[in-house]
Amino acid sequence: MRKFKKLVLTGACGALGSVLREPLAGMAEALLSTDIADAPDTLHENETFTQADLGKMDQIEPLLEGADMVVHFGAIPDEAPFDELLGPNFFGSYHIWEAAHRHGVRRVVYASSVHAVGMHPSADGIDLTAPHRPDTFYGLSKCFSEDLARLYWEKRGLEAVCIRIFSCQPEPANMRALGTWLSYPDLVRLVQRSLDTPTVGFVPVYGVSNNDRSPVNNHQAAFLGYKPQDNAEDYYDKVIATARPADPQDPSQMRLGGPFAIVPLGESGVAMIKKMSEAAD
Amino acid sequence: MRKFKKLVLTGACGALGSVLREPLAGMAEALLSTDIADAPDTLHENETFTQADLGKMDQIEPLLEGADMVVHFGAIPDEAPFDELLGPNFFGSYHIWEAAHRHGVRRVVYASSVHAVGMHPSADGIDLTAPHRPDTFYGLSKCFSEDLARLYWEKRGLEAVCIRIFSCQPEPANMRALGTWLSYPDLVRLVQRSLDTPTVGFVPVYGVSNNDRSPVNNHQAAFLGYKPQDNAEDYYDKVIATARPADPQDPSQMRLGGPFAIVPLGESGVAMIKKMSEAAD
Amino acid sequence: MRKFKKLVLTGACGALGSVLREPLAGMAEALLSTDIADAPDTLHENETFTQADLGKMDQIEPLLEGADMVVHFGAIPDEAPFDELLGPNFFGSYHIWEAAHRHGVRRVVYASSVHAVGMHPSADGIDLTAPHRPDTFYGLSKCFSEDLARLYWEKRGLEAVCIRIFSCQPEPANMRALGTWLSYPDLVRLVQRSLDTPTVGFVPVYGVSNNDRSPVNNHQAAFLGYKPQDNAEDYYDKVIATARPADPQDPSQMRLGGPFAIVPLGESGVAMIKKMSEAAD
Amino acid sequence: MRKFKKLVLTGACGALGSVLREPLAGMAEALLSTDIADAPDTLHENETFTQADLGKMDQIEPLLEGADMVVHFGAIPDEAPFDELLGPNFFGSYHIWEAAHRHGVRRVVYASSVHAVGMHPSADGIDLTAPHRPDTFYGLSKCFSEDLARLYWEKRGLEAVCIRIFSCQPEPANMRALGTWLSYPDLVRLVQRSLDTPTVGFVPVYGVSNNDRSPVNNHQAAFLGYKPQDNAEDYYDKVIATARPADPQDPSQMRLGGPFAIVPLGESGVAMIKKMSEAAD
Amino acid sequence: MRKFKKLVLTGACGALGSVLREPLAGMAEALLSTDIADAPDTLHENETFTQADLGKMDQIEPLLEGADMVVHFGAIPDEAPFDELLGPNFFGSYHIWEAAHRHGVRRVVYASSVHAVGMHPSADGIDLTAPHRPDTFYGLSKCFSEDLARLYWEKRGLEAVCIRIFSCQPEPANMRALGTWLSYPDLVRLVQRSLDTPTVGFVPVYGVSNNDRSPVNNHQAAFLGYKPQDNAEDYYDKVIATARPADPQDPSQMRLGGPFAIVPLGESGVAMIKKMSEAAD
Amino acid sequence: MRKFKKLVLTGACGALGSVLREPLAGMAEALLSTDIADAPDTLHENETFTQADLGKMDQIEPLLEGADMVVHFGAIPDEAPFDELLGPNFFGSYHIWEAAHRHGVRRVVYASSVHAVGMHPSADGIDLTAPHRPDTFYGLSKCFSEDLARLYWEKRGLEAVCIRIFSCQPEPANMRALGTWLSYPDLVRLVQRSLDTPTVGFVPVYGVSNNDRSPVNNHQAAFLGYKPQDNAEDYYDKVIATARPADPQDPSQMRLGGPFAIVPLGESGVAMIKKMSEAAD
Repeated sequence: MRKFKKLVLTGACGALGSVLREPLAGMAEALLSTDIADAPDTLHENETFTQADLGKMDQIEPLLEGADMVVHFGAIPDEAPFDELLGPNFFGSYHIWEAAHRHGVRRVVYASSVHAVGMHPSADGIDLTAPHRPDTFYGLSKCFSEDLARLYWEKRGLEAVCIRIFSCQPEPANMRALGTWLSYPDLVRLVQRSLDTPTVGFVPVYGVSNNDRSPVNNHQAAFLGYKPQDNAEDYYDKVIATARPADPQDPSQMRLGGPFAIVPLGESGVAMIKKMSEAAD
Repeated sequence: MRKFKKLVLTGACGALGSVLREPLAGMAEALLSTDIADAPDTLHENETFTQADLGKMDQIEPLLEGADMVVHFGAIPDEAPFDELLGPNFFGSYHIWEAAHRHGVRRVVYASSVHAVGMHPSADGIDLTAPHRPDTFYGLSKCFSEDLARLYWEKRGLEAVCIRIFSCQPEPANMRALGTWLSYPDLVRLVQRSLDTPTVGFVPVYGVSNNDRSPVNNHQAAFLGYKPQDNAEDYYDKVIATARPADPQDPSQMRLGGPFAIVPLGESGVAMIKKMSEAAD
Repeated sequence: MRKFKKLVLTGACGALGSVLREPLAGMAEALLSTDIADAPDTLHENETFTQADLGKMDQIEPLLEGADMVVHFGAIPDEAPFDELLGPNFFGSYHIWEAAHRHGVRRVVYASSVHAVGMHPSADGIDLTAPHRPDTFYGLSKCFSEDLARLYWEKRGLEAVCIRIFSCQPEPANMRALGTWLSYPDLVRLVQRSLDTPTVGFVPVYGVSNNDRSPVNNHQAAFLGYKPQDNAEDYYDKVIATARPADPQDPSQMRLGGPFAIVPLGESGVAMIKKMSEAAD
Repeated sequence: MRKFKKLVLTGACGALGSVLREPLAGMAEALLSTDIADAPDTLHENETFTQADLGKMDQIEPLLEGADMVVHFGAIPDEAPFDELLGPNFFGSYHIWEAAHRHGVRRVVYASSVHAVGMHPSADGIDLTAPHRPDTFYGLSKCFSEDLARLYWEKRGLEAVCIRIFSCQPEPANMRALGTWLSYPDLVRLVQRSLDTPTVGFVPVYGVSNNDRSPVNNHQAAFLGYKPQDNAEDYYDKVIATARPADPQDPSQMRLGGPFAIVPLGESGVAMIKKMSEAAD
Repeated sequence: MRKFKKLVLTGACGALGSVLREPLAGMAEALLSTDIADAPDTLHENETFTQADLGKMDQIEPLLEGADMVVHFGAIPDEAPFDELLGPNFFGSYHIWEAAHRHGVRRVVYASSVHAVGMHPSADGIDLTAPHRPDTFYGLSKCFSEDLARLYWEKRGLEAVCIRIFSCQPEPANMRALGTWLSYPDLVRLVQRSLDTPTVGFVPVYGVSNNDRSPVNNHQAAFLGYKPQDNAEDYYDKVIATARPADPQDPSQMRLGGPFAIVPLGESGVAMIKKMSEAAD
Repeated sequence: MRKFKKLVLTGACGALGSVLREPLAGMAEALLSTDIADAPDTLHENETFTQADLGKMDQIEPLLEGADMVVHFGAIPDEAPFDELLGPNFFGSYHIWEAAHRHGVRRVVYASSVHAVGMHPSADGIDLTAPHRPDTFYGLSKCFSEDLARLYWEKRGLEAVCIRIFSCQPEPANMRALGTWLSYPDLVRLVQRSLDTPTVGFVPVYGVSNNDRSPVNNHQAAFLGYKPQDNAEDYYDKVIATARPADPQDPSQMRLGGPFAIVPLGESGVAMIKKMSEAAD
C-alpha cells in the first residue's frame, strides 16, 4: 500500500474514527488525529492528537499543514437542532475544505451519510445518480458538504470521496440493517480505497457491506475498486428474533433513511430516534 | 426464519407447486394447499388440501381466511385459447387478490412469467423497468395480473411480489435455457425471500438462476436479497450435444420468450409449442 | 384527406362517440356505427347503425367485415365493479381485436385512458415510456387492452393507436382539467391523425389539448403529427371561481388520475366519483 | 386570478423584488414587503414594508404570521465570501422556511439560480433531473436552499417552487444572455404561476424566457403552466455589436454559469465578476 | 449578423450547395466556393470558385488558408459502392478536417445525414443521444465523419456542427417526407445558426423543418437556437394524392432512413433507389 | 464445446493473435491463420497459415471461403498516421466483412478497442450504451469498424461481436491497468463465448478482466455469458512500486483511453506513446 507522509483524521474519538485510527496510522508516516473530545488514552507510535473544534477555523486550519489527505469524520453524528449542527457539521465542512485548499492538500475523504438520500424508497434500487433527498437537518448537512466538495473539485481541483455511510455498527441491529449494514472491516476497506486510488476527482459512493439485501447500487464508482466482504445475512437469525412487526405503510421501513425518514426535524427528532433505537427495532 | 401462522399455496399439484409444498410447510404453522386437481397422495403434517377452481370466487374466498400470505402459483401454465385462460388465469388472479383483500391477507407472491416480457430481445439486457411485451395470451394474463397487483397495492395496501419465472425445470433443456434456467432450489430461495422480506410494497423480480448467460438484470429488486446459487453453465456439454442450429433471424432464439415469441396465439400455439419442445431444441 | 372504404365506430352513442360520428363519416365511403344503446335519431348519409353488445363475439365479429380500420370507443366509461366491466371493457377489447384480425382489418384506434397511468404524480411530467399504474378497475381494463394491442401488433401485425384520453369535455370543469382537458376538436384531430398516418405499428399517445399546464409529454409519438389547438387556460377565470381548496396531501390533486386516484375500487368508487363530480371541481 | 389574503415578499428593494412588488400587490389583499434596505419611496395601497435582516430569526419570524405564501427573493445576489453569504443566503433561507412552517404558511416561492447548476455545459441541454453543480459559494447557497426546501416538503408538507433564475435583466446584455435571458414580464409570469398553481409539492423550474437559444428544458415542471413570451433573439443585432471573441475552451462561454464558472470563489470572485461585466461581454 | 472574413463552401454546385451560396456570400467578406464540377455560370460579387477533388489533399488544403469556418457539403449524395465513396466521402472529410486544423480554421459545419441513424424506427422518437445505426455505405461515411469531427474537437479543439439532413427538397415528395422534409429556407436558417453561434464544441443536430410529423427531437442542441419555420403538412393534399400503399411491415415506411433502410448496400442499392424515387413514393 | 468446421484468424502473429491460435485450433476442425508477417515457426496440426495483406481484397477474400466464423484481430495495434491505418485498419475491416458476406460466413468476432470510447472519463462508469468517443485515429478506425459491423448485421444478417479490448497484457503494467487489465486467459474466455453463443446479432462488449477497479459495465451483453476470472488487484504491490505521481488534472489518468487521451493524433502520437510506455507509468 502507498505510504502517505501525513494524514489527518477528524472525529478521531467517535465510534467510526476509533475504528479508523489504527489502519490510517498504518498508511502514513504521521497521523494527526483530532476531535473536540479529549485525547484517546493511548496513541499509535506515529500518531499525534490535537483537540480542536471543527466550528473554529483558527483551530482547524493549522492541523492540515503538510497533509497529503484528510479523512473527515468529525461531526455531530445524529439529528440535532439546526443551530447545533451549524458549527460542527456545516462550518466544520467548510473549514476542512477551505483549509485543505489553502494548504494544497490533495483530497478529502468525507463521512457523508445515507441520510443525504434518506427519503428515497429502498425499493427504488437507486444508484449514484439519484438526487439528494435529505431526511433530517443532519442529512441536509451532508447534502451541503457534498455540494461543497463538488464545488471545490470543479473550481479548485481539490479531490473528494464522499462515503455515504449506511448502518455502520459491529453487527446489524435490525431488519433494515440486513440491507444497510456496513461492517467495520468494510468501512476500513472503503476508506483505504478512497485514499489509495490514484485519481478520483469528485465521487460519491455508498458505504454498505456485501449484504444480500443491499438496496443501493455503486456501479458508477466501480473505478474505486471497493469490494466489501461482509454480509449482514449471516446475522439473520439473531436479527429476526427481535424484529418489530412489518408495516409497508411505515416510511421508516420503506425508505432508505429508516427511522430518520419519520422523526420530526431537530430537537424532538433527536429524542424520538433515541427512543426508537432503545426499543427493539 | 420467520414462522407464519398460515400460508396458502395455489397450484399445489403443478410442477412448481409440488416443489414448493415442503419448504412452505416448513415456514408456517399451517399450510393450506389447493389445486383444481386431486389432492396429492401424501400431505405434510401441518398441510391441508382443498380442491378448488380458481375461476370460482365462492370456492376460493373461504380458503384465504386467516392467511398471512398467499403463494399464488395456480394457473394454466401454457399458451391456450383466450377463453380457456379466462377462468384460471385472469379471473383466478382477480379472485385471489380480491379474497386476499377481504380477509386482510398481507401479501401475494405470484408466479408471473418471462412471457409478460417475452417479445424483448434477449440482447437488450432489460432490467425491471422494461415495459410489458407479452408474447402470447398466456403472457397477457401475466401482464394483467401484475397490473392488478400494482393496483391493489397502490389503492388497498396489499403487497405483492411478482416472480417472472423463466425456464423452471430440473435441468436446463436447451441452449436458451443456459440463460433462462431457474433451478428448483433457486425457485425455493426466491419464494422464501419473497415471503420473509419484511416489507415489499409492489415489486416484480426475474426468476432466473445465477447463470453465466442470464439475460436480465434484477438490480431494482436488490432489497429482496435474492441470491441464486445454481448456474446452467454446468450443463453446457449436455445441452450442446442436442442443440438445434442457431439462426439469428429466428425470434425464438433472439427474444426472451423463446418459442412463445413465434407460435401463433391460442390453440394452434399450444400444439406448436408441444411439438417444438418434443423436438430437440 | 385519405378516404377509407369502410370505418367502424364502437360506442357511437356515447359522449365521445357522438362527437366522432360526423368527422368519421367524412373520412370514409361507409361508416358503420355501433353501440349497445339504441340508434341515434338521425344518421349521416353514408352511415349505418347496428346495435350490438361488445361482450358478445357473435354480435361484434360480423360488423368488422370489410372494414379498413376500427375506432373502438365503446366501453363502460367509468369505474364499476370488476364483474360489470368484464363484458364491455375486457371481453369487448378482445372481441374487437380478434374480429379485426380475422377480417384482416388494418388498424384499431382505441379509446384508452389517463386512468391506465393515473397513479403517477402529475409533477413527474411522464412521457410515453412510463409504466402502467392503473387507478381503478376501469384503468386496469385500459392497461389490459393496451397490452392486448401490443400483442396483436407484435404477433399478428395488427396496428393500434391507443389514445389515453384525459378530461374530454366541452369545457375544462375544474382546476385539474386546466392541465388535463381534451377539447372535442382536439379529440377529432387526434383520431384523424391516428387514422391517416400511413403506418403506426403499436403506439400509445396522450389525449390532451395544448394546455399551458399539460402534465404529460407526447414526444415519442411525434411522428403521428398530433398538434392540439385548444388551451384550457382560456377558461381559467371561470374555473377558478368554483375551485375547491388546494391540498398537496390529497392524491386526487397530485396524481394524474384525479379523483380516480382516491376512490375505492369498484362499486363504492362509482358512487363517490359521482358525488365528487356533482360537487364543484 | 386567485386573491390571497396575505403575501410576503423578501428582497423587496432588490432589482427583481422591485419588479415583483406591483404584480404581487395585485394578487393579495395585503402584501408585506421586506428588505434589509430602507423602505421604497412609495408603497402600493395594500402594501406595507418592514425593514428586517434575513440573518435574524427574531426579525423574520413575525413577518410571516398569517401569510398564505412567501415569495423569497432576499439574499446577496452575487458571489461573495462564504462568511458574508452565511447570514442572508444560508441562514436567511432557514429562517424563512422555519418561520413559514411555524406559522402554517402554505408555500415558499424561492429565487434559486442557474448558479446551482452552473458547471453543467450549456450544450448538454439539461432538464430538471440534472444534479446540483454549483459554480460559486453563491451557487452553493442556492443548492443548500433547494435541499432545505425539499426536506421541508417531504417532512413537513410545506410546498416550494424553486425558480432557477438565469439572466434576469431589462435586456439581454451579451451573447450568453441570448440563451439565458429572463425578461421581467416573464419573471412576473413565472412567479404568478408559482403562486396560483393549486398544488405543487416541491418543484424546481428554470427561469428563462422563450429564447430561441434557451439551453435548458423545463418539461418536468410542465404542470406549472409557465409559458414565457419574450425572446432574446429580438436583441441579436444589438448584442452582437459588442460581443467579445468566442472561445470554445473558455468555460465562461461553454457552461451554464457563464463568468461564474471561471471566477475564483469568494472575495476575489466578486471583484472579477464586476470587472468582467463592466467590459463588453 | 456576424460578418466572417472568409468562408469556404464545398459541394457548391450540388443541389444544397447551390442553395447555400447566396446566403453564405452574404455572411462573409469573401466566399470561396469549390466543387469537383465546373464553376457555376455566375458568381456572387465576393465569391470565388476553385474546382477541386475532395479526395486529393493537395487540392483541398490550400483552399482553407485564412478561412474562419468551412461549410462542408461536398460528397457523393447517395448510396454508392464503398470504393466510390472512399475518395469524396471518407477521405474528403479527413482532408477537410485535417486542412482546417492545419490552417487554424475555427469550425466545420458538416452535411451529415439521417442515414447515419437510418435504421432507427421512426416511432422511437429518438433524440440526439441515439447511437449510430447507418443504413447504407453512404450512411456509414456520415458516421465516420461525425466520429472524426468529435475526435478533432476533443483532441484538437476544432469545433463542428454535424447537421443530419433529412429530406431536403423544394417540396415534400411523399408521405415519409411529411415528417422528414427540410425546406431550403430552413436549411439556410440552420446553417446560419451553425455559423453564428459563438461556441459550439461538437454537436450533432437533426435537419428537419417544423413539420407536424417530425419524428426526431433536437432538444440537446437547443442552445444553437435553430427554429424551423416551414411545415410539410401544408403539402398534405398534394402528397396524399400519389402516396403508395401503407405497409407497417415495410422498413422503408417504418425506419428513419426510408428507402435506404431496405436497398442493398452499394451498387445495386444505387439502382434501386433511383427506381423507387422515379415511382410515386 | 461446439466444434466448427473452419475458423479464420487474422493478425495471427500479433501479440494477441499468438495467444488465440491454440484455443481456436482446439475449437475447429481447421484453423486458417493469416497475418501480413511471416508464418509462425510452428503450426498446430489442424492449422494452416497464409500470408496476406488486409488492405488487399484479392488476398483476403479467398481465405474466408467455407469459414464458419472469422476472428478478426489483424490491424496496426497502435496510433499511427491516418494514411498508414487506412489499409490494415479501415480497408481491412471492410474487406473482412465484405468477404465474409460473399462467402456466407456467419459471424465476425472483432478486436475493437477501448480507444473507440477512450475520451469518456473513467469515473463515469459507462455501460455499452455510451456513444463513440475515439481518442486517436486508431480509435477512429475501431468506431468505423463497429458501425460497419452494425450495418452488415442490420442490412445483411452477418453477426458480429465487437470486443473492446482494454489493456491486454501478461500482467497489469501500471495503475491504470489495475482497472483496465485483460488477462490472456480472460481474452481467450471472451473469444470463446463470442464464438459459441448460438445467436448474437450485433453486440459490443468490454474486454476487461474481473478487476476490482474495472471502470466499465457489461450488463447489456450479459447474454454472452462472459465471466472473467482474473483480477489485476493481485498485482497491486508490484504496480504501486513504480507508479508515477497521480494527477487528477491529467486526462491520461482520468479518461478510459489513458495515454491515448492526451497524445497528439497521428505520427507524433506514436512516438509519444512509445516514450510514455517506456517510462514507468
